[in-house]
Amino acid sequence: MTDLILHENAGSGNCYKVRLTAALLGLALERREYDIMAGETRTADFLANINANGRIPVLQVADRLLPEGNAACFYLADGSWLIPDDHFERADMLRWLFWEQYNHEPNVATLRFWHGWIGEANWSELQRAQAPAKRAAGEAALTLMDEHLARHDWLVGDGLSLADIALYAYTHVAEGGGFRLADYPAVQAWLRRVEGVPNYVAMDA
Amino acid sequence: MTDLILHENAGSGNCYKVRLTAALLGLALERREYDIMAGETRTADFLANINANGRIPVLQVADRLLPEGNAACFYLADGSWLIPDDHFERADMLRWLFWEQYNHEPNVATLRFWHGWIGEANWSELQRAQAPAKRAAGEAALTLMDEHLARHDWLVGDGLSLADIALYAYTHVAEGGGFRLADYPAVQAWLRRVEGVPNYVAMDA
Repeated sequence: MTDLILHENAGSGNCYKVRLTAALLGLALERREYDIMAGETRTADFLANINANGRIPVLQVADRLLPEGNAACFYLADGSWLIPDDHFERADMLRWLFWEQYNHEPNVATLRFWHGWIGEANWSELQRAQAPAKRAAGEAALTLMDEHLARHDWLVGDGLSLADIALYAYTHVAEGGGFRLADYPAVQAWLRRVEGVPNYVAMDA
Repeated sequence: MTDLILHENAGSGNCYKVRLTAALLGLALERREYDIMAGETRTADFLANINANGRIPVLQVADRLLPEGNAACFYLADGSWLIPDDHFERADMLRWLFWEQYNHEPNVATLRFWHGWIGEANWSELQRAQAPAKRAAGEAALTLMDEHLARHDWLVGDGLSLADIALYAYTHVAEGGGFRLADYPAVQAWLRRVEGVPNYVAMDA
């Protein structure tokens, strides 16, 4: 595969997904770190030359740029064992990826960011107003996963797929957002299964 | 293809995406309508038997159920001309679909729902607090599209793909959320291009 550069932040689950996908597939990624809190993804240069949406990760493939972590995972995994061969299961895997971005990440990851990077003492009035709804929606997302994983070892089909990687990224650090993983035993058992897959790498590796 | 049933609401852009994809591909869909405002997607029966996430659309393929509109579009279009053959472009198409669910739909579609279904007079305090940020984020999303479409006829590659279908759905009715499409001339020209594609169907068809 062409040389790959990941424009990223080491603490971001959306970036970690891409690193974990690459590790499981044995692909080398050159990492370029951006300090989100210092506004390094909102500079005129970044917006003009890396991502007009002002966000990381962005996967660079030669001179082409691919924003959105789940799309970057798909690019790396396209044609590999991480994407199911079955027509329905392939779409069902994407179902979990879209669900992650709509129902899980904006709640579980956002509260982790608000707690761990901004700090509750510094929350805006709007953040204070939104936090209870994000807490409830994050708990609902974890409950939905727990009920599914009580009946299935993996989110889709009989083995690990990108769906597990995408959901693992922010679920395994959900306690940083104040969620209690002990409340979701099937999720906890699944986290350990993901961590047992050959070539797994931790977020802080 | 197996008999397809779309569990949906006629006014939802997320459901319309699936109908538009099916129409462009010449696929027949049986439609089952749910009244969102009457809570028909939150009943115990719906949660147990259609979608534990309490949302439509859900595409039913024989006895299997596929939530998330963009995943349903992918299921229908997998292997067709609506998904680019090129490895990078295929992932770039998904990039727009993930971006739509994270940066466009929660702002452009949510404000349309709040204005057109709930009514500003009935907004909660939290909705009033969130509306200005959703307005700004929705305008930023439309601006990002406008700048891209000023340089490209289609979101990805040289022709229509699922990216255009997914973004068309809520963009073409953005004025229902108080957005001014006249401010985005390249978006307007692109909307007309999408409407010119053979077998296009309107949202209210």
